Amino acid sequence: MFKRLAGADDALVALLRECNPIQRSEELLLNYLVERVLSQDLYSDSDLPAFNRAAMDGFAVNSCDTRSAKPYSPVYLDHFLPIRTGMHVPEVFDAIVMLEDAVLRGNQLEVIVEVYPFKNIAKVGEDINRGQTVMKKGHRLRPPDIALLAALDIGKAEVYSRPRVAILPTGEELVPIGSRALEPGEAYEVNGLMTQQYVEMWGGEPFLYNPIPDDLIQIRSAIESHLDMDMIIVIGGTSVGEKDYAPQILSELGNLLVHGIRIQPGKPTAIGTICAKPVICLPGYPVATLSSLYLFVRSALKKMARLKDDTKIVSAKLTRKITSKPGYLSIARVALDGDKATLVMVSGAGILSSVARADGFIIIPEDKEGLDAGEMVEVQLY
Amino acid sequence: MFKRLAGADDALVALLRECNPIQRSEELLLNYLVERVLSQDLYSDSDLPAFNRAAMDGFAVNSCDTRSAKPYSPVYLDHFLPIRTGMHVPEVFDAIVMLEDAVLRGNQLEVIVEVYPFKNIAKVGEDINRGQTVMKKGHRLRPPDIALLAALDIGKAEVYSRPRVAILPTGEELVPIGSRALEPGEAYEVNGLMTQQYVEMWGGEPFLYNPIPDDLIQIRSAIESHLDMDMIIVIGGTSVGEKDYAPQILSELGNLLVHGIRIQPGKPTAIGTICAKPVICLPGYPVATLSSLYLFVRSALKKMARLKDDTKIVSAKLTRKITSKPGYLSIARVALDGDKATLVMVSGAGILSSVARADGFIIIPEDKEGLDAGEMVEVQLY
Repeated sequence: MFKRLAGADDALVALLRECNPIQRSEELLLNYLVERVLSQDLYSDSDLPAFNRAAMDGFAVNSCDTRSAKPYSPVYLDHFLPIRTGMHVPEVFDAIVMLEDAVLRGNQLEVIVEVYPFKNIAKVGEDINRGQTVMKKGHRLRPPDIALLAALDIGKAEVYSRPRVAILPTGEELVPIGSRALEPGEAYEVNGLMTQQYVEMWGGEPFLYNPIPDDLIQIRSAIESHLDMDMIIVIGGTSVGEKDYAPQILSELGNLLVHGIRIQPGKPTAIGTICAKPVICLPGYPVATLSSLYLFVRSALKKMARLKDDTKIVSAKLTRKITSKPGYLSIARVALDGDKATLVMVSGAGILSSVARADGFIIIPEDKEGLDAGEMVEVQLY
Repeated sequence: MFKRLAGADDALVALLRECNPIQRSEELLLNYLVERVLSQDLYSDSDLPAFNRAAMDGFAVNSCDTRSAKPYSPVYLDHFLPIRTGMHVPEVFDAIVMLEDAVLRGNQLEVIVEVYPFKNIAKVGEDINRGQTVMKKGHRLRPPDIALLAALDIGKAEVYSRPRVAILPTGEELVPIGSRALEPGEAYEVNGLMTQQYVEMWGGEPFLYNPIPDDLIQIRSAIESHLDMDMIIVIGGTSVGEKDYAPQILSELGNLLVHGIRIQPGKPTAIGTICAKPVICLPGYPVATLSSLYLFVRSALKKMARLKDDTKIVSAKLTRKITSKPGYLSIARVALDGDKATLVMVSGAGILSSVARADGFIIIPEDKEGLDAGEMVEVQLY
C-alpha cells in the first residue's frame, strides 16, 4: 500500500519546484537553432538594410526635382535611374517615383507626381540599426528569427543547452528492442524508446540506457552514476512490491517527495530529488508511463528548457458517458471523428494498442465521477 | 497592375485542388518513424503479451484450489509460485492471488479470497493477437505507436514519402548566406532558409538551391529541371514588374491559376501548375513570404504529407485597435503578454525584425475594416 497518495496538482507543483531552467549554454550554427532559446542578448554589427534600398519598381530621382509635378503639369528630369525593388539606390538619389507615375520620353523622364525625400526607399538601418539589440536573452528562435540573423550575417548564436535526461528502464524480464529473439517470459523494453522520443519532442536531450535488472544495488548504482544529468527518469519498479526499489533508493540517497499519485492510470509514479537533481519514477505499464509522461515529465522538461508548455488541444463533444474514479484525476483515451470524441474502451494500463486507437486524451478532474454523453471536452492530441 | 486579384479562400482552394497526397512510400527503421504516416496496414506476427503475464505482485495459483476461500475460512495450498508483475505465469497456474490476500505459512500458502480463472493475469494476446491488424494505412505514428511496434518486434514500417519541395530563390542582388562578404547593393538570401525550415516542420523534404538571377531563361530552366519534385516554390519576382518572370513562366509552361491575392502582406503571391506539379511563387519581402507560407504552403504540404493541418492557437484580448484594408485578408503580427495581444507596429513587409517581436499572428477577415481594442482574437503562434 502507498503510505500517502498525493493529488496530481500537488505532485506537479512539488516536481516543478525542483526543476530549474538550465543555465549552461552552447554556441550553435544557424541550421541548428530552430526552437532553441537564446542565452544572451544578440546585437547587430551591421545595418539592415545595409544600403538605401528601392521599395518599389520605378525610377530613382532627386526628390527636389519633382517639386510641384502633377498629372496635368508634369516635370521633366535629365537625372534619374531606372530601378527595381530591392536594388541599391545610389547616394545621389533620395526617392523612387513609381513606374505608373513616370514615362520615359527620349532621354528625359516625365514625372506626374511630386515625391518627398525617401519616398519608396527602405533607408539604411530601417529594419535593424548597427549596435541595436536584435533579440533578447530568453527568445525562442523561430524560422523568421533565424532568417533575420542570416540577413545580419550572424552565423551562430549562444543558446541554452537542452536538459540532459537519463532514461533508466528497469525489469529483469526486459530485453533491448530487436536485440535478439525473446525467450519465454521476456518482453522488449519499449517504454524507454517512447520516453526517449517524447523527451526529444519536448526539448530535452535523451540518453536511453539498456534495461537494468530488478536489483537494488544495480539500480542504485545506475542512478548514482547519472547524477551529472539534469533529470533522471527511472521506469518500472515504482510500486510498493518487494522489488520496487526506485522509491526506496530515492529515500536513501535524497528526498522522496511523492510516492503514489491519485491519477488513473499512473498511480505508482514517484517523484524526488537526489543531489538537487529531479528524479521521476514512472510506472512500468506503458499506458501509465504515457500518462505520467504527459502530466509530469512534459511540464518539467519544458520548464528546464525554457519553452512554453503549450499543447495541441481540440474541442469535441463526447459521444458516450465516461465513468471515472472519484478522488482520482483520470486520463481517458479518446478517438476523434470530426468534432466527436469517443472513449477508447480498455481493460488495463498494459494495453498499448488502446493508444494506437486514440487521437488524444481528456482529463477528468478529481472532483468528478465521470463525464456525460454530449458534454464538450478538450482533447489533448498525442 | 495585377489583372485580377483572387480572394484568399479561393486561392487556397485552387491550390489544394492541385495538391495530391503523395503515393510513393519508403521503408524506415523504428527510430525514424515519429510523425510519419503508414502506407500499409500493419499486421502482427506475434501475440502481445506473448505469454500469460502476471498483472499483480502475488502468488500464481490454480484457481480451483481457492474455491470458497474467505478471510474467516482460508484455504491452504501446497502448489503455488511467488510471482511479480510482468512475469511469466507458468501453464500449470491460471490465476494470481494478490500479496495482501495470502500469507506464507511454512511451505503452505494461506489464501483468504477465492480467485476465478485468469484473475490478475494478462492473457496471451490480450493486447494484440497474432495476425491482427495493429494499425491501419494512413495512421500517423506517435511515440506510443512506435513502442507498440517495438513490443511486437516489428522493426520497420512502410510509410508515405514526404513531399519533395524545390525552393528556388530569385534575385540578382542575393548572395547565399554567409558565403562571402556583401558588396554594396547585395543582400543575403534568407527567405530560402526560412522556407526550408518551415517545409521541414510541416512534413516536407526541402531542397534549397542557390539564388537565381532575375533572368527569364535561367529561372525557367531551374523550374523545368525540378519538375521531378512534388512542389516547386519560387521566391521573389512574383509581382508585375518588368523582371517579375515567375508568373509569366507559369503561364507559358503550365497554368497560372492565381496571380495576386487580396491579402496583406503577401499580395504578389502566384499559384499555378506545370505538368500537374503545384508551383507557388512567394513574394520576396520576408514578412510577405512568411504570410504566404502560413496561409498557403502549410496547408498544401500538410495535405500532400497526409498530416492534419493543426495549428497552435491561443485566445487573447486585443490591447489596442487594429485597422486593416477592407476587402483584403490581413495578417497582423502580435506580441502576447499573458492573455493580452498587442499589435507589433511596422512600416512594411520588408521589416523582418517585426516578426522577432511577435509571438504569432491574427487573421483579420476580408469583410472587416479592423478589430477593436478589447476584442477576443485567436492568435496562431509562430
